[in-house]
Amino acid sequence: MAEPLADLTPGLAADLLSRLPPGTARDRGPAYLTEPRGMWRGRAGLVLAPADTDEVARIVGFAARHRIGIVPWGGGTGLVGGQVLAEGALPILLSLERMNAIRAVHADENVLIAGAGAILADVQAAAAQADRLFPLSLASEGSARIGGLLSTNAGGVNVLRYGNARDLCLGVEAVLPDGSVMYGLRRLRKDNTGYDIRNLLIGAEGTLGIVTAASLRLFPRPAVRGTAILTVRDPAAALTLLGMAQAGGGVSAFELISGQGLRFLAEAGLAVRQPFADPPDWCVLVDLGLPAGDDAMTRLEALFAAGAEAGLADDGVIASSEAQRAELWAVRERIPEANRHVGAIASNDISLPLSEIAPFMDRAGTALTAIAPVRINAFGHLGDGNLHYNLFPPKGRAKAEFADLADDLRRVVDDLVHDHGGSFSAEHGVGRLKVAQLERYGDPARLAAMRAIKAALDPRGIMNPGAVLRRV
Amino acid sequence: MAEPLADLTPGLAADLLSRLPPGTARDRGPAYLTEPRGMWRGRAGLVLAPADTDEVARIVGFAARHRIGIVPWGGGTGLVGGQVLAEGALPILLSLERMNAIRAVHADENVLIAGAGAILADVQAAAAQADRLFPLSLASEGSARIGGLLSTNAGGVNVLRYGNARDLCLGVEAVLPDGSVMYGLRRLRKDNTGYDIRNLLIGAEGTLGIVTAASLRLFPRPAVRGTAILTVRDPAAALTLLGMAQAGGGVSAFELISGQGLRFLAEAGLAVRQPFADPPDWCVLVDLGLPAGDDAMTRLEALFAAGAEAGLADDGVIASSEAQRAELWAVRERIPEANRHVGAIASNDISLPLSEIAPFMDRAGTALTAIAPVRINAFGHLGDGNLHYNLFPPKGRAKAEFADLADDLRRVVDDLVHDHGGSFSAEHGVGRLKVAQLERYGDPARLAAMRAIKAALDPRGIMNPGAVLRRV
Repeated sequence: MAEPLADLTPGLAADLLSRLPPGTARDRGPAYLTEPRGMWRGRAGLVLAPADTDEVARIVGFAARHRIGIVPWGGGTGLVGGQVLAEGALPILLSLERMNAIRAVHADENVLIAGAGAILADVQAAAAQADRLFPLSLASEGSARIGGLLSTNAGGVNVLRYGNARDLCLGVEAVLPDGSVMYGLRRLRKDNTGYDIRNLLIGAEGTLGIVTAASLRLFPRPAVRGTAILTVRDPAAALTLLGMAQAGGGVSAFELISGQGLRFLAEAGLAVRQPFADPPDWCVLVDLGLPAGDDAMTRLEALFAAGAEAGLADDGVIASSEAQRAELWAVRERIPEANRHVGAIASNDISLPLSEIAPFMDRAGTALTAIAPVRINAFGHLGDGNLHYNLFPPKGRAKAEFADLADDLRRVVDDLVHDHGGSFSAEHGVGRLKVAQLERYGDPARLAAMRAIKAALDPRGIMNPGAVLRRV
Repeated sequence: MAEPLADLTPGLAADLLSRLPPGTARDRGPAYLTEPRGMWRGRAGLVLAPADTDEVARIVGFAARHRIGIVPWGGGTGLVGGQVLAEGALPILLSLERMNAIRAVHADENVLIAGAGAILADVQAAAAQADRLFPLSLASEGSARIGGLLSTNAGGVNVLRYGNARDLCLGVEAVLPDGSVMYGLRRLRKDNTGYDIRNLLIGAEGTLGIVTAASLRLFPRPAVRGTAILTVRDPAAALTLLGMAQAGGGVSAFELISGQGLRFLAEAGLAVRQPFADPPDWCVLVDLGLPAGDDAMTRLEALFAAGAEAGLADDGVIASSEAQRAELWAVRERIPEANRHVGAIASNDISLPLSEIAPFMDRAGTALTAIAPVRINAFGHLGDGNLHYNLFPPKGRAKAEFADLADDLRRVVDDLVHDHGGSFSAEHGVGRLKVAQLERYGDPARLAAMRAIKAALDPRGIMNPGAVLRRV
């Protein structure tokens, strides 16, 4: 049982500021205290943007001594409220935004070292400038920062080939909850010297320490790229097609798109070129990245031919230019925008064992429409078993009419996901939004281990209080 | 400060056995109480081979109540003494050998679920039978078991392409130090629901719990394979050649072989066909695994031509049959045997940032030969920055003559490795052999976090006592 946290009173705030260089504090504006879905409004006694790791350590050490909560803040793009503390004692909001340097690019080692505040798009650009690829890629890459991306083990569209953020990180520098600094910017592929503290910090959503810098893996840039959208009979057929594509190699992304998603693009009036005159029930976007001398068009044509031969794919569009590639990708990437326009009753970021996807979708569709006449838009990273499975009102009706049912609908989805061996949070994390789901679905022995580790590393419970684990 | 452990007295042993099915105990023979290099002789009050996870949990729960140490035992192939407890209170040796079932193969998901006692070669075979690849591959694969391979985060020859054991594991089932069972055989590529307990157990060498089963990643089997050995001027040239090879894709292994290693093969009288009439100073073994329709010979010829053009490679042998591939691989794989025949003064399993390898080797060679006229055989997984860097007496002299210098020589290597940002244990782990090195070279904040986690999860200090962390 942790002692209650203390408020960052004006007196303590003045004391802390006197220990930091001028210019460390930021205005406590809405940019720091809201989150993308507008579900919470955060509070903070101070918003601080330290310039270096030593300053972060000073702030954390002060907070530990005075039992003040700290909310680490990256780009503010998280979707589960991990960056927003709405109640309880007034915390310090600690923004990494000034620690945004690309510290080094070791192109010959395929390693890049970045401060936690580096924006993902800037890291991608620095890698490209060295003729390398940093493959992490997701919708918020223009704002999301490396520290937050690692703390939430971010996913995105290239996980199938390159892994999650966790898999792209060779080492972290971090300030631990007692204010000590762990210097771990290793550039090693192999290092078996004790417990994996790096992976414990990655995905801990700032509750075990603050990532201040990371060494990241780079890859050769694929010389040849190709993209196609192929219609498929159903998600099961899509998975069989995925197996065929993977046997051929070079698959960077394999994204499921539903007919519902295509119709939402039109319903939302977005200027997206529809790949097919009549939206099929299902289609997949296949993206290849190949070495020089390879021919993406030929490979995609062969995949389509083999898929058609096997009765899996009926129709398809293969991009023959970079402009067409961008058009095909826009179909997939603008679905979240269309969803926002239509207005979801409930959103779920789920993952399933690949062979459980089709049975889950059958059961979930039946169970949900028995409760309400919802429209389901399931789309996303099929190759990772990761679906964004979102529920919408029937055409012409507002989501507000279904607000009372939202919790029931979400619960039906989560229960079925759990029943099929899946996860209620594939890539967004737990934050403050899904603490109760973790308690409900998490393995009890694992939860006990998590609580023991939290108490051991952060005995006063100051680090991102209430995120991931309830503060007891 | 943990209380001292208690001996497993005959009375306690009888009590414990009465709670287990007949046939759980094994003879306390040398197979369980020695280790491959013969450095220690272990002790145990009982050797137990439980049949299932519930029995493991019962044994661990009993040990926790009575403060008895437990030494988890896989295939007994570890090289750092993690499986051998030579002193202190009499422990239980817990062998996973009976829990060797391949529980399931989900070929369409590229997932295999195995008990911790499954032998690596059997897992490879089960994957192959489903037309899949389980890529973990190392010298001891005929004896090493999955539980031990995960607990030590084993490496091997395919890490460059497929990662370490850690990267091949989607989930673990484990018995924690209080006897509770964590059921975590997930088959998910994405699951962001709290702390990464899986990766904490992986690489903890049995000090935080006992892995009882794992879900493992499978891959498409490369349809086309090719292998070559190319001479290179020096390790720096080898690394440049590696970059060229990786840009072409499909590189499964990239192993450095020294002229010293080639000469040792002859000196040891092993029946290995030398790839070159005169051993070059350095060569690399390049292994490709490619999809159907690709041509390995053409790719390897192109790599050699490009390497020669760039002044990196002078000569080469490309296998034109499976038999020749096996011959080339034997050159690499039999070097450890030749080393044992010659007799090493000191062995080091080190890793370095790729661009530090050449400078390290220059400095180390000078520093070591200033101490003694050693012969250095550096070889191994160059693509991972992982070298087995072993020191031998001059021809005609015995390693015993240099026994007094072994610690000094090892220390010179370790200090220089540390100075160049490397690791004193790339793939073998810490065990009991390298505890002092971890204390010397480990980051203090990281070590403090490790000790806090050990105390939190195993407050009585029963799990593999004295491995990784000194028992204080």
